[in-house]
Order: sequence, then structure tokens, then C-alpha cells
Amino acid sequence: MKRLSRRDFLMGSLGGIAIVSGFSGIVIPEQVSAAKYPWGYKKLDPDKVAEMAYENFFKGYCCYAVSSAIILSLQKEIGEPYTLLPVDAFKFGHGGVIGWGTICGTLLGAGLATSFAAGKEGEEILNDVMNWYSNTELPIYMPRVAKSSIKNRSKSNSPLCHVSVNKWMTKEGVPFKSAQRKERCARLAADVAKKTVSLLNQWVDGKFEMQNDSQVALYSTTTQHNCTDCHGSKVPSPPK
Amino acid sequence: MKRLSRRDFLMGSLGGIAIVSGFSGIVIPEQVSAAKYPWGYKKLDPDKVAEMAYENFFKGYCCYAVSSAIILSLQKEIGEPYTLLPVDAFKFGHGGVIGWGTICGTLLGAGLATSFAAGKEGEEILNDVMNWYSNTELPIYMPRVAKSSIKNRSKSNSPLCHVSVNKWMTKEGVPFKSAQRKERCARLAADVAKKTVSLLNQWVDGKFEMQNDSQVALYSTTTQHNCTDCHGSKVPSPPK
Repeated sequence: MKRLSRRDFLMGSLGGIAIVSGFSGIVIPEQVSAAKYPWGYKKLDPDKVAEMAYENFFKGYCCYAVSSAIILSLQKEIGEPYTLLPVDAFKFGHGGVIGWGTICGTLLGAGLATSFAAGKEGEEILNDVMNWYSNTELPIYMPRVAKSSIKNRSKSNSPLCHVSVNKWMTKEGVPFKSAQRKERCARLAADVAKKTVSLLNQWVDGKFEMQNDSQVALYSTTTQHNCTDCHGSKVPSPPK
Repeated sequence: MKRLSRRDFLMGSLGGIAIVSGFSGIVIPEQVSAAKYPWGYKKLDPDKVAEMAYENFFKGYCCYAVSSAIILSLQKEIGEPYTLLPVDAFKFGHGGVIGWGTICGTLLGAGLATSFAAGKEGEEILNDVMNWYSNTELPIYMPRVAKSSIKNRSKSNSPLCHVSVNKWMTKEGVPFKSAQRKERCARLAADVAKKTVSLLNQWVDGKFEMQNDSQVALYSTTTQHNCTDCHGSKVPSPPK
């Protein structure tokens, strides 16, 4: 069924079940429903979105930072249906999902944004973002006015919050609850938002090509690339 | 700004910026926006939602299975704003997020549903679901008509897809792309959906109390409980 928009309403071009209101000549749909997915994308400025992600980290942490920076920007550029999505719903991704150290919240935020914008094709974009994240010394982003000063970058070799943040904390010598750790994760959010928007911008121009194959195609099971980090020299093969 | 609903429209109780249409006496908001978050919850039948999760797994895999089973049920029970959310957007969580084996997609689906329904309090529900998932021999659910026959249950000791699914595959002796592995993950989705709905039902009655402390409170960093699985006897302490 077609979603109710102001234009549809005024133009009278409504689909689906309709009722007649008490006002003359107006029909109103019985129930509005989810807009056709995916919701599309309009080019954004990667640097502006990065800045917004950095600032938004301090309002709702990592997953919120990236998802809100992209989705709120699309709310401004596109309007509905993005304006119907409450970005606060994505705060729970903090700390690798409520502190369990699973997927880095910035990557989950990128996954949500790419999914709403590009649907199934968003998965290819996310796959490249996750490979880039794992293989890059981060954070790169330098805020105009930093909340805290930090010294180090580190390469996670993994999309897991636990691995990524603890490697950096050990290098920097600071605890999880320090201002420096928050600063690092805020800058990381800016980096991931910028990378994601850069690839979405290529995609909307028809110029995006996935650089990395899928994990299951590469390993015949769901996994990362850093097998020996946990398994040592005894990396098991999945059953055949 | 208040979201436009049919009732608001008919009752004339609109908030926010408004314009006057060409029709007499009607105001229409300039832009509709996201409904007040969280969106609330109405008691669901855990067994019915479990069955729906099992079936939906075969339409969009693990994360979709759990999130769609709960959210589509709430679309039916509550209507808007749940009807404005395209559940297809959560398919990307499959295989621990597009096959990277991070958070089990069923748990990500639970996180999304609990977040939209219960907001910040949903995090406490999810935390208990994740502890239960890690400590329980799964899958328990038995479909009325199974797509495939499977023999084993396993305890993951972890919320990670990679750990959870590979432990089970090794026990069952089947590869990732087998019908049996899909059957196991579909039943697991049913279990997670049922557990999540059971806790949400308690919560909406004011009877939910979180049984497990947060991971960061317990470990001073983002992590799981199974430290020795990756670190062996040399479990490092996070910097102080």
C-alpha cells in the first residue's frame, strides 16, 4: 500500500484502502505502511558527515554516531521516509552491542545506513568498509576542536570492538572509561562515516565496485581474516 | 515535531509547522517526522513469534528472522509507527553481519526489536538474552514441519556467530552451506525470538528485572565471558 505523503494527500493520488473524511472531497488511507525499501541516497559531503559523526558520538556513542550522521543528513537531503526513522533506536550498538565487544558499533552503524540507503547492494559497500577498517591504522580524523588529546593509531586486524579498542587502549595506556578512549572511538566513528559516505557516493554514481570477496566465499564459513589470533597455529577447517 | 497520523489529521490536533491546504479548514504539517521513540510494546504469544521466526529465516536469514517476527507482529498489534519500518532493512545482519561471524544475527535482530519497543530499557532485556544464549544448549525449538532433520544441540559460550555456528557444525559434522546448518540457525532464531518476547512480556507488565550485570561493569572493558577461549591462560587485563 502506498505511504501517505503530504504531496499525495494534496494531489489526491492515494493508493490502498481509503475512507472519506468529514471534509469535502478528501480521501485518507486507512493505514499508511512502510515506504518501498531501500530508501535511496543522495550524495553527501564525506567531511561534513565525519564531523557530525564525531560530535554525535558524545550524544549516543559509536553506532549512533555513524548511523545518525548519515541518516540525519539524508533526512535533510531527502526528507521522507528517512524522517520517519528515529535514529535513537540505534544507540544499543555501543561497545560492540551493549558492551559485549562484538561488531564495532561504528560498523554496525555503517551497516544500518548502507542497508536503508542501498538495500542488498549496501552489503557490498559494508563488506569493503569492514575490510578497510580491519586493515587501516585508525583513527585518522582530526577534529577542529578535540575533546581530548590522543597519541596513537592502531590496526585492529578485526571488525570486533573488543579486539579493536583493547589493542588501541593497550598502545595508548589508558582504561576503557577514560576521556582518551572516548576520543579515539569518536574519531574512529568519523573515519567510518567518511569511508562509508565516500563509497555510497561512488555507488550512487554507478562507479562502485566491491574490492573484496565475501567472507563465506573465501572461508566456507562465517569468520574474520585473523584466524591465528584466536586459534594460534591450530586453525581448524570447517566440516566439509 | 509530531508525526502525522490519520487520527491526528481528522481530529485537527497537529503539532509543529503547519500550512493551510487548498481545502477549507484543514492544516497539514510541513514535514512529518519520526514518531516518539521508543515505540512501545503489546504482549505477544512467544510460541507464535517463535514459529514466525523459524519460517522467516528461510526468507531472509537470522537477523531478519528475529527482527521481522517481532516487528511484523507489532505492526499487526499496534500499527503505526511500526508499519513505517521496512523489516527487510535488517537482512544485512546475516552470518554475524554479512558473513563476518561477529554478533549472531538472531541477537542483533533481538537488539533491534527490543530497542524500538523499549528504548534504553531494551538494553537490559538484550543483555539477559545474550547471557542466556551463551549459556544454553541450543537449538531447543522443534518445528511442526521441519525443513531438515538435525541431531545436535550445542552451547556457544559466546554471542559470536563464528563461535556459535562452527561449534555446532563441528558437532553435527556438516558444512556451512548444508540444509542442516540452515535448519539449526532457523530453530535458533525461533529460540531467541521466543526468549526475547518472553522478557518483553514481563517488561510490559513491570515484572522484568535484569539478571546479569553489564559487561563493562564486570570486566572494565567491552568483552564476552569466555576470555580463555582466545587468550588461553594468558588473559590480559585492560590498562588502568
